[in-house]
Amino acid sequence: MIATNPLSELLSTLLDRRNFGRKDTDTRRIRDDCVKLLAERAEISGLQLAAKIFGKYAILTDDEKLAFFEFLNEELDVDPTLVASLAETYRNARTPENYAALSRAAEPARQRLFRRLNEAPGATAEIVRMREDLLACVKTHPHLARTDLDLQHLLRSWFNRGFLVMQQVTWDSPATILEKIITYEAVHEIKNWDDLRRRLHPKDRRCFAFFHPSMPTEPLIFVEVALTKGVPNSIQTLLDDNGKALLETEANTAVFYSISNCQSGLAGVSFGSSLIKQVARDLSRDLPNLKTFVTLSPIPGLMRWLSAENISADELDGANLRALAAKYLLTAKDAKGRPVDPVARFHLGNGAQVHALHHGANTSTSGQRQSATVMVNYRYDLGRISQRATQYSKSNTIAASSDTKALAKRA
Amino acid sequence: MIATNPLSELLSTLLDRRNFGRKDTDTRRIRDDCVKLLAERAEISGLQLAAKIFGKYAILTDDEKLAFFEFLNEELDVDPTLVASLAETYRNARTPENYAALSRAAEPARQRLFRRLNEAPGATAEIVRMREDLLACVKTHPHLARTDLDLQHLLRSWFNRGFLVMQQVTWDSPATILEKIITYEAVHEIKNWDDLRRRLHPKDRRCFAFFHPSMPTEPLIFVEVALTKGVPNSIQTLLDDNGKALLETEANTAVFYSISNCQSGLAGVSFGSSLIKQVARDLSRDLPNLKTFVTLSPIPGLMRWLSAENISADELDGANLRALAAKYLLTAKDAKGRPVDPVARFHLGNGAQVHALHHGANTSTSGQRQSATVMVNYRYDLGRISQRATQYSKSNTIAASSDTKALAKRA
Amino acid sequence: MIATNPLSELLSTLLDRRNFGRKDTDTRRIRDDCVKLLAERAEISGLQLAAKIFGKYAILTDDEKLAFFEFLNEELDVDPTLVASLAETYRNARTPENYAALSRAAEPARQRLFRRLNEAPGATAEIVRMREDLLACVKTHPHLARTDLDLQHLLRSWFNRGFLVMQQVTWDSPATILEKIITYEAVHEIKNWDDLRRRLHPKDRRCFAFFHPSMPTEPLIFVEVALTKGVPNSIQTLLDDNGKALLETEANTAVFYSISNCQSGLAGVSFGSSLIKQVARDLSRDLPNLKTFVTLSPIPGLMRWLSAENISADELDGANLRALAAKYLLTAKDAKGRPVDPVARFHLGNGAQVHALHHGANTSTSGQRQSATVMVNYRYDLGRISQRATQYSKSNTIAASSDTKALAKRA
Amino acid sequence: MIATNPLSELLSTLLDRRNFGRKDTDTRRIRDDCVKLLAERAEISGLQLAAKIFGKYAILTDDEKLAFFEFLNEELDVDPTLVASLAETYRNARTPENYAALSRAAEPARQRLFRRLNEAPGATAEIVRMREDLLACVKTHPHLARTDLDLQHLLRSWFNRGFLVMQQVTWDSPATILEKIITYEAVHEIKNWDDLRRRLHPKDRRCFAFFHPSMPTEPLIFVEVALTKGVPNSIQTLLDDNGKALLETEANTAVFYSISNCQSGLAGVSFGSSLIKQVARDLSRDLPNLKTFVTLSPIPGLMRWLSAENISADELDGANLRALAAKYLLTAKDAKGRPVDPVARFHLGNGAQVHALHHGANTSTSGQRQSATVMVNYRYDLGRISQRATQYSKSNTIAASSDTKALAKRA
Repeated sequence: MIATNPLSELLSTLLDRRNFGRKDTDTRRIRDDCVKLLAERAEISGLQLAAKIFGKYAILTDDEKLAFFEFLNEELDVDPTLVASLAETYRNARTPENYAALSRAAEPARQRLFRRLNEAPGATAEIVRMREDLLACVKTHPHLARTDLDLQHLLRSWFNRGFLVMQQVTWDSPATILEKIITYEAVHEIKNWDDLRRRLHPKDRRCFAFFHPSMPTEPLIFVEVALTKGVPNSIQTLLDDNGKALLETEANTAVFYSISNCQSGLAGVSFGSSLIKQVARDLSRDLPNLKTFVTLSPIPGLMRWLSAENISADELDGANLRALAAKYLLTAKDAKGRPVDPVARFHLGNGAQVHALHHGANTSTSGQRQSATVMVNYRYDLGRISQRATQYSKSNTIAASSDTKALAKRA
Repeated sequence: MIATNPLSELLSTLLDRRNFGRKDTDTRRIRDDCVKLLAERAEISGLQLAAKIFGKYAILTDDEKLAFFEFLNEELDVDPTLVASLAETYRNARTPENYAALSRAAEPARQRLFRRLNEAPGATAEIVRMREDLLACVKTHPHLARTDLDLQHLLRSWFNRGFLVMQQVTWDSPATILEKIITYEAVHEIKNWDDLRRRLHPKDRRCFAFFHPSMPTEPLIFVEVALTKGVPNSIQTLLDDNGKALLETEANTAVFYSISNCQSGLAGVSFGSSLIKQVARDLSRDLPNLKTFVTLSPIPGLMRWLSAENISADELDGANLRALAAKYLLTAKDAKGRPVDPVARFHLGNGAQVHALHHGANTSTSGQRQSATVMVNYRYDLGRISQRATQYSKSNTIAASSDTKALAKRA
Repeated sequence: MIATNPLSELLSTLLDRRNFGRKDTDTRRIRDDCVKLLAERAEISGLQLAAKIFGKYAILTDDEKLAFFEFLNEELDVDPTLVASLAETYRNARTPENYAALSRAAEPARQRLFRRLNEAPGATAEIVRMREDLLACVKTHPHLARTDLDLQHLLRSWFNRGFLVMQQVTWDSPATILEKIITYEAVHEIKNWDDLRRRLHPKDRRCFAFFHPSMPTEPLIFVEVALTKGVPNSIQTLLDDNGKALLETEANTAVFYSISNCQSGLAGVSFGSSLIKQVARDLSRDLPNLKTFVTLSPIPGLMRWLSAENISADELDGANLRALAAKYLLTAKDAKGRPVDPVARFHLGNGAQVHALHHGANTSTSGQRQSATVMVNYRYDLGRISQRATQYSKSNTIAASSDTKALAKRA
Repeated sequence: MIATNPLSELLSTLLDRRNFGRKDTDTRRIRDDCVKLLAERAEISGLQLAAKIFGKYAILTDDEKLAFFEFLNEELDVDPTLVASLAETYRNARTPENYAALSRAAEPARQRLFRRLNEAPGATAEIVRMREDLLACVKTHPHLARTDLDLQHLLRSWFNRGFLVMQQVTWDSPATILEKIITYEAVHEIKNWDDLRRRLHPKDRRCFAFFHPSMPTEPLIFVEVALTKGVPNSIQTLLDDNGKALLETEANTAVFYSISNCQSGLAGVSFGSSLIKQVARDLSRDLPNLKTFVTLSPIPGLMRWLSAENISADELDGANLRALAAKYLLTAKDAKGRPVDPVARFHLGNGAQVHALHHGANTSTSGQRQSATVMVNYRYDLGRISQRATQYSKSNTIAASSDTKALAKRA
């Protein structure tokens, strides 16, 4: 259809923001500027101040950043005495005025500050990077977690699922984006552009990512998919380039073989579950031959668990390892009654089930070290995702195929 | 440049949302669904519930809507006793845990509900419409202003200036958007498509709007601009179609002759100031011949003020009317010391100055009734906007040209 | 997918061409400029000359245009003596040099001139308009048909099917294009923008057009489609706005109820057949429920034929009129043995068959005058189009349903 | 601006064509299919036949291709006896009918065949590749040049300057296009993606290409530009990555340091001149600080000429080499009186002048071998391009700066 794109030129505007310069040489007065920005009512001066603050922030040393976060944490905090008093007032008279006063007091100044900062062009990406720094500081200064609570709260609101847009990443995508896919791939390294081409270009490969309109060249999370005949049992075979690509119509299975978060500043603002499910739904609609949606996933905690159980993987054959892996996934729980394995928690929480286990599935060094080469398929059964996710979230029920259950019993 | 558009296919995704069906026949259980949604942890069930709630909401009667808002207002409110108690706890020990507990208690459940609702595709526009209904209810049920405080707070965060995108609206824009420009023009009615063409197509006309990426076919606010030689003194002459369009290079003045808010559900989430200033900056960059940026604005409160002052406009000539209008704009203040005239407040708050007054400038019926045909140019002097806005916001200083000041003294 | 659009910014470039100014006051020297252009080897001077020629052409009077075409026809013709001589030379020695000499001599200078003219930005549309003028002149000055032969030859090469792009026209298309759809609709008038909306916006309506990349805002030909349940028997009912739109999934039939050529300067460069077939194929792929593809077509020659046969339509009932219409379509032939009816020739030539006849199908004044309200469905049976088109082109075989054949026999 | 892009979805259509499958196993009957295609009147069968022919062509061996071209050359040639006879007829009576008969006879069937083939989706790129094969055959079988004359004639018409679109190629362009830039760079090799990034991404680098709408991912020709302060005298310094990028506003000179044709099948269909001039005009408009437009060009024939003149470069210092290079460029002529140096012919034909010579400008092996490290700046003086091009084309006048002239005299 012709030019139906009401967003078609958002681009230029949004991309322009990337060139937004914010160099500033004076580093000392960033706090004063923050206080000024909170007081500033004229919008244009606010934008200039915000840009100035980002400029100063950009050249802070690590120690200065820590001092800046301390300032946010202590001086731009809520005043609990005031909150308590206004809560009393509101309890006695539930008027809009009293409510407004309470709301305002209960929101720390640092939250307002982040919102004001966000008005500047390109600011959202800057704030995400700022949180990356903050998270690093929280590790050594746990009390800064209070500031992080506010920042995470804001980012969750701004990166609300309803604002994200899923896009396919292809060999036709801008190099600006593709180079980030190379950088951010966290599960199975992409060595270079030729390797990337092999992940994107063949007819039986797909890659999908979430983007936020304010950061149009920054993928937030992406998943790589292979279209196959039957459920695969080896990641090396899957990634291998020797074979011919399948025709779309020949494939009956979609394999989510790698999922990577890109923005460490968005930790805890999760969208991985949405992405896999939307990709599964879209693929299922576009390629009706696809009947099975599975992962080919690592089992990062297997060797640790075996060792804790005093079992030596070296003495076990493939059949026994598979059985023990099944037992591990189905029975090893943490203090809260959830599976010990983090990848299992992620997919089971999404409504997937443990489908099958394969020995010799990841023969790389890390595959041997983590799980003695065993990998697992989690299966997304579109008709039952919702029900399984609910059951898991209510009672930690682990869905598993009857084969897997039988296997686990054998161990 | 080739395909630099990382947003180019956001379109299809975003537009698809418009067809999002949400008919639902069961109207009674919307509250239960809201409670369920707040408790739901599985994401996909959440999306389905949200869609269900919008479906039910869409067919509520006015009374049912009122009841729904009462439910949000009373049952999904904060618990002030709990807030007070947790504020005390936090005062005694400023741990992240205590802070998290306080933050959570101080945020009413209805805010969380709106955020969950917003995860559904197309939800943002629905929530804006919901607020339109809420604002209508607040008029007769002022205590609902508490719920509105929360909703406005959220919308301000979501429609943060940094997320908005300015677009030129032209005769090449989609009809979907153009028909909304016709509908929303609030100052000088656009009679039909031919009339719209006259506002958009000539070389000496421009129209700019803000959009939010989640509502790509819904302008939020738009401003209409005429490029002229010299500052215009008659809106009828300006809108008249008899003349030839100026070449861009002949114009030295940009006239903002109409600015219209489109979404009544976004009342109080203002972006008018940003729009005018960004348009002025962009025009100034693209057409360096443009030296003067003015409005041609109504003076809605003039006749009311004259009448309060016991002055009969009928007995005054143009010169006297201009002088009185100048006096009105420069001296008539409200209880807070701000100009009585709402249009004056808007432009002075933006950093404009009162530039010139014209009699016979709006000879339409409404022009005669409001201001005895007098209109005013507010001038945006790009180099002094920021300073003037700050002075106005600090001390209600009204910037005016020396001619206007002299004129006011004469009255 | 992100930014896969290698054409995405062709737009600006191409649209810019529309503002290409070509006013020029000197009208007399256009022929000299043409001769100069043919001789010019420096490219940039060629572009300037071409723009100058278009500028001069634009302000020629009708008589001057005629003189210009006479000039092309007589002075820029081939030299047949030279052609004959070079053909002899080539017959005697088939060398590349001799072939080149013959080729060059056999191509008239006016063809080279048109190609040089076409190098200027925006020129293609100008040349199409030039041919519109030429065709008007040919009517009264038939010898100019020689020049038209060359121009048509060139336009066929430039508007080769492989260069055209089919686009859906929707309510989201630019107003620039939509206003042309209103202007060019030749079969069932579109009264205004509301009427246009009814043709484009409902879920059971479609419109598709061919565009040429050099004229991106000018549709070349478009077809309007209604999705229906069953084959329609009344154009008034079809166009009527009373009913609810069908869901796409409810429709089983696509009706091509109007097809309009837009550029009279492209007469004889036909793409109507391609358009209908591509639309049928695309719809069939996207909406698998669609099983039947038909037109609802006028029978422009029926009343003339009845009158020639001395049959008075006034005395006939619907059944008889349908039978006679069937007889007319299946048996009335021209001197070359092809159907007399031009619409029949078009659709049968495309590989359609006469499917059904309806009395009372077009009750408008023109429907009564042309065909006593009778209309016909031509059916495009995707599996048999190619075979039927071949049979028709070989032996004028008229494909018809058995019902229609029986009906024709009854007359 | 919002969705003004009437071409915005041409993309999908055009890109779809790339996946157009044309595998076919029967190789023998390609000639029969060509004859059938020439006779076919039903359009859809024509498309199928064309696709079949491309399919068969794709798997021909070199010998079979040669045989295919012989078939085109001999059996689909014009009939000179018929042409001569129809030319006589037309000389005697200049009727449109006689003209039509002559025109048709004078056009060989192979030209019609190529036009029919071009109707298939994706065909234009196939035909360009076919000409690549043909040109290879012409080298050993020069009589095939007759067929090439026709093919070149058609391609010139289809790739008419007016149909081409200039696009900037940036780091945001699709990888599909970028990998072709790497492949096609013919002057200064691009080693890998990082190297490409250095050519495209810095603020002081640009790359522009021509595209044809039917081949939207295939650049036809591209030029690489560096923005500099002053005229550069060393290609190694220019390409070196050590320095910081200039700000656009600091640059006063645009250097066309590399220009590469991409499609060998389009040899002789030149657009290099247009590209440089359009880039110069566009840059001059967008960056008014740019005052000087020059190349930094090789002098491929210098060493050959010195050797022919019995001058040994080894014994000369830089000053002497520069002087001799100036003399070579200004005085060494071929039989037609044009400069011997092919690069000089290209730029002087475009209207450039010889601006300055630099020793030590290209210290690479090939720079030493070709021109003893001497390079030359050709200057494009926008105000005089047209005049100089005309003078050169009329009288082979070589424009040169007074410095260069003085230098040449010194030699």
